[in-house]
Amino acid sequence: MKLWLFGIYGIVGTTAIAGNKAIEKGISEKTGLVSELPDFEGLANFSPLSFDEIGGHDIRNIESNLYEELFKHWEENQHFDYRILKQLKEDLEKIKAKKGTALNCGEGVLEELKPIESLENENLSLEEIVDKLEKDLLEFKDEETVAINVASTEPTIEYDENIHGNIENFEKAIKENKKEKFTASMLYAYVCLKNKIPYANFTPSIGSNIQALKQLAEENNVPHAGNDGKTGETLVKTTLAPMFAYRNLKVLGWMGYNILGDLDGKVLAHKENKESKIVSKDKVIGKILGYYPYTITEINFFPSLKDNKTAFDFIHYEGFLGTKMKFYFTWDAIDAIVAAPLVIDIARFLNFAKKKGQKGVIKELAFFFKSPMETDIYNTHTQYQMLVEWFNKLKNEG
Amino acid sequence: MKLWLFGIYGIVGTTAIAGNKAIEKGISEKTGLVSELPDFEGLANFSPLSFDEIGGHDIRNIESNLYEELFKHWEENQHFDYRILKQLKEDLEKIKAKKGTALNCGEGVLEELKPIESLENENLSLEEIVDKLEKDLLEFKDEETVAINVASTEPTIEYDENIHGNIENFEKAIKENKKEKFTASMLYAYVCLKNKIPYANFTPSIGSNIQALKQLAEENNVPHAGNDGKTGETLVKTTLAPMFAYRNLKVLGWMGYNILGDLDGKVLAHKENKESKIVSKDKVIGKILGYYPYTITEINFFPSLKDNKTAFDFIHYEGFLGTKMKFYFTWDAIDAIVAAPLVIDIARFLNFAKKKGQKGVIKELAFFFKSPMETDIYNTHTQYQMLVEWFNKLKNEG
Amino acid sequence: MKLWLFGIYGIVGTTAIAGNKAIEKGISEKTGLVSELPDFEGLANFSPLSFDEIGGHDIRNIESNLYEELFKHWEENQHFDYRILKQLKEDLEKIKAKKGTALNCGEGVLEELKPIESLENENLSLEEIVDKLEKDLLEFKDEETVAINVASTEPTIEYDENIHGNIENFEKAIKENKKEKFTASMLYAYVCLKNKIPYANFTPSIGSNIQALKQLAEENNVPHAGNDGKTGETLVKTTLAPMFAYRNLKVLGWMGYNILGDLDGKVLAHKENKESKIVSKDKVIGKILGYYPYTITEINFFPSLKDNKTAFDFIHYEGFLGTKMKFYFTWDAIDAIVAAPLVIDIARFLNFAKKKGQKGVIKELAFFFKSPMETDIYNTHTQYQMLVEWFNKLKNEG
Amino acid sequence: MKLWLFGIYGIVGTTAIAGNKAIEKGISEKTGLVSELPDFEGLANFSPLSFDEIGGHDIRNIESNLYEELFKHWEENQHFDYRILKQLKEDLEKIKAKKGTALNCGEGVLEELKPIESLENENLSLEEIVDKLEKDLLEFKDEETVAINVASTEPTIEYDENIHGNIENFEKAIKENKKEKFTASMLYAYVCLKNKIPYANFTPSIGSNIQALKQLAEENNVPHAGNDGKTGETLVKTTLAPMFAYRNLKVLGWMGYNILGDLDGKVLAHKENKESKIVSKDKVIGKILGYYPYTITEINFFPSLKDNKTAFDFIHYEGFLGTKMKFYFTWDAIDAIVAAPLVIDIARFLNFAKKKGQKGVIKELAFFFKSPMETDIYNTHTQYQMLVEWFNKLKNEG
Ligand SMILES: NC(=O)c1ccc[n+]([C@@H]2O[C@H](COP(=O)([O-])OP(=O)(O)OC[C@H]3O[C@@H](n4cnc5c(N)ncnc54)[C@H](O)[C@@H]3O)[C@@H](O)[C@H]2O)c1
Ligand SMILES: NC(=O)c1ccc[n+]([C@@H]2O[C@H](COP(=O)([O-])OP(=O)(O)OC[C@H]3O[C@@H](n4cnc5c(N)ncnc54)[C@H](O)[C@@H]3O)[C@@H](O)[C@H]2O)c1
Ligand SMILES: NC(=O)c1ccc[n+]([C@@H]2O[C@H](COP(=O)([O-])OP(=O)(O)OC[C@H]3O[C@@H](n4cnc5c(N)ncnc54)[C@H](O)[C@@H]3O)[C@@H](O)[C@H]2O)c1
Ligand SMILES: NC(=O)c1ccc[n+]([C@@H]2O[C@H](COP(=O)([O-])OP(=O)(O)OC[C@H]3O[C@@H](n4cnc5c(N)ncnc54)[C@H](O)[C@@H]3O)[C@@H](O)[C@H]2O)c1
Ligand code: NA
Ligand code: NA
Repeated sequence: MKLWLFGIYGIVGTTAIAGNKAIEKGISEKTGLVSELPDFEGLANFSPLSFDEIGGHDIRNIESNLYEELFKHWEENQHFDYRILKQLKEDLEKIKAKKGTALNCGEGVLEELKPIESLENENLSLEEIVDKLEKDLLEFKDEETVAINVASTEPTIEYDENIHGNIENFEKAIKENKKEKFTASMLYAYVCLKNKIPYANFTPSIGSNIQALKQLAEENNVPHAGNDGKTGETLVKTTLAPMFAYRNLKVLGWMGYNILGDLDGKVLAHKENKESKIVSKDKVIGKILGYYPYTITEINFFPSLKDNKTAFDFIHYEGFLGTKMKFYFTWDAIDAIVAAPLVIDIARFLNFAKKKGQKGVIKELAFFFKSPMETDIYNTHTQYQMLVEWFNKLKNEG
Repeated sequence: MKLWLFGIYGIVGTTAIAGNKAIEKGISEKTGLVSELPDFEGLANFSPLSFDEIGGHDIRNIESNLYEELFKHWEENQHFDYRILKQLKEDLEKIKAKKGTALNCGEGVLEELKPIESLENENLSLEEIVDKLEKDLLEFKDEETVAINVASTEPTIEYDENIHGNIENFEKAIKENKKEKFTASMLYAYVCLKNKIPYANFTPSIGSNIQALKQLAEENNVPHAGNDGKTGETLVKTTLAPMFAYRNLKVLGWMGYNILGDLDGKVLAHKENKESKIVSKDKVIGKILGYYPYTITEINFFPSLKDNKTAFDFIHYEGFLGTKMKFYFTWDAIDAIVAAPLVIDIARFLNFAKKKGQKGVIKELAFFFKSPMETDIYNTHTQYQMLVEWFNKLKNEG
Repeated sequence: MKLWLFGIYGIVGTTAIAGNKAIEKGISEKTGLVSELPDFEGLANFSPLSFDEIGGHDIRNIESNLYEELFKHWEENQHFDYRILKQLKEDLEKIKAKKGTALNCGEGVLEELKPIESLENENLSLEEIVDKLEKDLLEFKDEETVAINVASTEPTIEYDENIHGNIENFEKAIKENKKEKFTASMLYAYVCLKNKIPYANFTPSIGSNIQALKQLAEENNVPHAGNDGKTGETLVKTTLAPMFAYRNLKVLGWMGYNILGDLDGKVLAHKENKESKIVSKDKVIGKILGYYPYTITEINFFPSLKDNKTAFDFIHYEGFLGTKMKFYFTWDAIDAIVAAPLVIDIARFLNFAKKKGQKGVIKELAFFFKSPMETDIYNTHTQYQMLVEWFNKLKNEG
Repeated sequence: MKLWLFGIYGIVGTTAIAGNKAIEKGISEKTGLVSELPDFEGLANFSPLSFDEIGGHDIRNIESNLYEELFKHWEENQHFDYRILKQLKEDLEKIKAKKGTALNCGEGVLEELKPIESLENENLSLEEIVDKLEKDLLEFKDEETVAINVASTEPTIEYDENIHGNIENFEKAIKENKKEKFTASMLYAYVCLKNKIPYANFTPSIGSNIQALKQLAEENNVPHAGNDGKTGETLVKTTLAPMFAYRNLKVLGWMGYNILGDLDGKVLAHKENKESKIVSKDKVIGKILGYYPYTITEINFFPSLKDNKTAFDFIHYEGFLGTKMKFYFTWDAIDAIVAAPLVIDIARFLNFAKKKGQKGVIKELAFFFKSPMETDIYNTHTQYQMLVEWFNKLKNEG
């Protein structure tokens, strides 16, 4: 099985690969990998933990290599033991990004990641960009290749039913070079689904989350999933909010205040790039409670933290006899460390799904996402059970 | 339906009754009542929210009445709106405790609650004590009476297979006046189960949690449940710990530090009385994770807080690539407010169980307890589902 | 000694008066009153703790009285013992606000406090407004009257050297009805200083903080002080930040996130009204450290909290060998309770200052303010020492 | 100037030396060093930042060297940048501990640090032990040598006026081999003061804090200081508590709960070794407030934290009108990182004091200690001012 990452030089991408290799080499434990829990015994028969090959697109430092890029993130964060790092050098130096697209990725990306080295810079038409991306993937892929988008968060683009509503029009608009109607993640998702490569959107960017691409996935019998990895504060929210519901306690307000200082933080400091993220984080409370209490959901840049995302949550609720009470939590984690194993998990489950003949949105992967597609189940526990049941059912099939 | 409370003059007991009456009068919402969630629609047909009569035993201020006792707690805590309080005066003045037993309740109870007015003081034999308790209950009870123990936490007593192991020997030992083998809660539970009154143990005291009484319950077709209401920090622990399990995150250590300053806090400041509480709070983590990380579980007296239990939890865990991360939460609630509605819930579900022919330990009520009897399910979410399924199954039966 | 409050019907104003009366009646302690510390022994000889009379302006509910207004705040917040409240009814009903001005008080005030009953509504010229205000004060004042502004926070107004730069032009502009150059707080400060009534600005509004009014105060030998009561999160910040300085620890970032839900919170939810508050809270860190680390300072509306201001601070700092460390604090207090006693303190110290012949800005009152005028001393400790020394020096003079 | 450390192989000792060398080499900043603040300009003329030589005693791994010992601490904690570590290897390998004494160091030390290699193991008399220690120091010392005790915390020993009350009896008891009357730290302090080497006690062990040794210091014109470095939670407590005093807020209770998991933590997990530490941390609140509120002060072992001391403080206080409010803080720091620079600071100030003819307890160094000798000033701010004034006064003298 092979793994392709869009945004491969980011901290999530590089850390996922580093961890994968470290486990392969026996120098790190499998902690953090959902797919290695006893509940998923047998998964490895379909989707092994080791990948045969890893590749990806990025839009920065195309001449660099994965080790160098990982090392830069590491120097800022020292996010795992330096002895592991050293032993990965040789393997990781061999992995190099291909040049991707930054189409309509917003000021956040263009400003914070410059100099950008993307296909647009080469004066290509939309069709030519798509062709280049496709060529990279076709060269790489085998029958068991999965692609995951861990690139920076894009701004949302206005939904245009005419173009995004079905795959025929979507492809026509590419031919007609209607660049303003597409973002990078849509192109990545398109190229994957077109070529029967399962695709997952680990970001809140649009990716495969439009009618045209959902149709394509169904037609091509290819599974996909998203959006936005549920890794930190939102994971806790969706684990905890059910408690208030089960106990008939009335949530009066829920404040969630996130700070971080890495590249992702820089990009999200730009309003348009932040927007989809906020929506993604904010709505989960109401989905779980069945009513929408007052909420504050903010992400702010705090440079010295780098990738050490810290979140402060405050829940004000009412109990018996109308009495108000308080609950506080603080999340203090390394964003890439909580995200990276899920990238591997999702890839393995998508490959499993494909082998088991699943197609379209795999809503049973909701457990991994802040904004799961095509389901209203946001409760972490229910999502986990759903995943286990789905896996067991398919495992025992055929 | 009628409700009998052991420890009726405590803050949990008085608050439960106050809330119940306030809802009856339409001056308070049903917030906090699990039994009023849509998931339990139809319960009221078996167990109405209003009780026909409320009574109980206590060992202090026997000449007082429920309003006076509630008012003392209220002056210390102002734990709900004073306008509600005022409107309950007339109703609550009518409720008066009967004199109970403080047998082997430990120094915590004897010292902190003095002057004690209990049956022992009257130089009665064990059999006479039991008779008096039984008489009180027989005078009070109808076909739909449930009793709940909300008295102070007793010390544990050494398990003596000869006496506690079957009901015949248990009753013989009562006759033989072997006082050192019994605690108040065991006598209360005995009297209830003997008279087919469902009994629940809201405290970590022994109550019905010995073989002899379990046998009696089975023989008499009466349901019972316990132990120790899961209302605060432990509720959060058992909601949150599963998240670490689902994500294959390794909990390295879990610190839970509780402070409170009311009567309960005073009693628990005594080592022997505290012991069962600590055990009850501590073991849940290991039960959920499947391994036993380093834990700190403490309850300390902090006078100025009164009933405003505050808890500080810190979870140290390891993720991908061996990286350590941190999670903190602070629980800031009014102990009686989170406990009181559960007293009503448990009573209603036990009465429902009895009507549906259930007998013995109702392990499906695990959701309400820190140390549920006869189950290893500590995960709050699973417990809730179990409760809903059990209710639905029985509801639709016969 | 007499006290006049602008914004007398607000929660700070009503609570200050309630506390003052409760102490007078012997039903409450002097806790919270700086002026009653042993360090200020002898102050009462100049400025007694009891006021002979209390009055003020407001722009809402002019027909109401202080008890009614206090009671509304109390119902929302139950911010002190209801038994105290009851005993104050008779005294407080006698206090009634006069109609004030809401000139250029911004959308926050106009929207959230409506219906507004202010002098502008009566189609008066600026001069007429000033005359009315002056009339109210002249009727009320004696030789020992102090006025304090506890009205809602106004937006800042652009400084116009021509008009705000000296008192002659300031008065000319009033005559010329240049309403756009004045805010309510400037008019209040003007009327006070003109009539030798010491004035303190408990809000971040402009008040007496312009050259023209400072000149007037000097010429009229009247003391004044401000701005913005230092009562909560900023008090802690300015107490704690020196620690990092003394220990040569480098603050990398300081996040201060405030939420509250009362009227003040509603007004501050309006961007223009919030602005001066943010500036006031934000700059203190740099002033104390001598360099400006990255800071986040936010105030957000959180309705269910009412006046229970809650603040979350996070300090990221660097120590020996470049190692980063973390410090967190949570402030959970009743805003009016921490503010109210300072209103009394400031009044007493200003009256003392006047009697001791002090005039102009009393920078030694910096201890009470977030943005003290004419000093760069923000360190709470140094401010306290300065206050004690100033008091002792004057006390022993003449 | 030269530095001698008792307990040199501990994490505080090794980190202090590492930092000192790193600064010398220009590969680390001076952050954390009080003695490098502008307020102490000129100190370097008396006490340079670089030491000519560094040595010390320890009771473990005597054949090891400082780099190896530092490296073990570093592997557990990664408490500073690994690139700094690498560059220090050569220098630190040259530093080797001499064998010290573990006399009456308690079960905590004997159990947790075994195998112990100390002079007692060699069957020496008290006098012989003292001679050996003295020999080591005499070989090392020059005119500007300072010694600091950073060894593990010992149990307290009962004060015996006959032996500890004056130096003559103290020396006689050594000759008489009354081992039960002495602890290691007393011997270290004795050898130093006898040889005119300024001594500071960075631990809560007895050290020079008995009458006999104070007398010796006076007679020998040698300055000394202690006890127990004020580096973490207590530093914050003594910075913050004054705020409550200045504002006349009544502290109802103060909870301080500390957890850590390093060697120091292991030793302190032993009751007798912990005792002096608790006393040291606990009393500061009362000293500052002038009354003794209810306090909880605990230190508990939490293995996975290693040297990352985490503390949870909760302050319950009463304000105006009797209203109770809450304040919480969390301290999350690396114990050795906050302690190490102070070791250097104290050494430099003691050497300065000696050169300026100061003798006996230097109470102006109170700023550095939890339990400063011979002063009641615990307020961090006042202590800092006292230090600055003392320095300036002496600097300008002679
Ligand atoms: N816990 C988490 O870290 C977490 C959780 C959920 C979602 N996410 C999302 O995952 C994504 C990656 O996070 P990160 O911390 O690694 O960010 P990052 O900034 O370190 O990495 C993003 C990478 O994507 C590259 N990139 C940007 N636009 C691209 C494009 N159009 N095509 C190809 N490459 C592109 C960048 O050059 C960079 O290398 C972000 O969108 C983030 O919001 C992260
Ligand atoms: N959130 C919660 O409050 C919570 C949660 C779980 C369990 N509990 C348990 O519920 C119990 C009640 O808590 P509380 O806060 O109301 O305590 P409380 O001290 O206010 O009330 C206990 C009452 O029981 C009475 N009592 C003591 N021993 C008795 C005996 N042998 N017979 C009859 N009465 C007796 C006392 O006189 C008192 O009126 C405690 O055991 C507590 O540990 C409470
Ligand atoms: N801890 C604190 O509460 C604290 C600390 C520092 C500053 N402050 C400031 O004190 C002021 C009062 O706070 P509050 O909580 O009492 O607010 P509030 O909204 O309860 O009260 C403000 C009162 O001022 C009145 N008002 C508004 N504009 C007026 C005007 N132009 N003239 C006369 N009256 C006017 C309102 O009608 C209201 O009665 C605010 O500006 C607030 O920012 C409060
Ligand atoms: N922030 C802080 O770390 C801090 C603050 C205040 C006080 N302290 C105190 O500083 C001391 C050192 O702390 P640490 O974290 O470095 O502990 P540590 O356990 O890492 O180091 C103690 C060292 O002292 C040695 N030792 C023990 N007894 C000895 C003896 N009798 N003679 C010579 N050496 C001996 C041990 O072998 C060890 O190398 C402890 O007493 C601690 O309580 C530390
Ligand atoms: Na932390
Ligand atoms: Na709180």
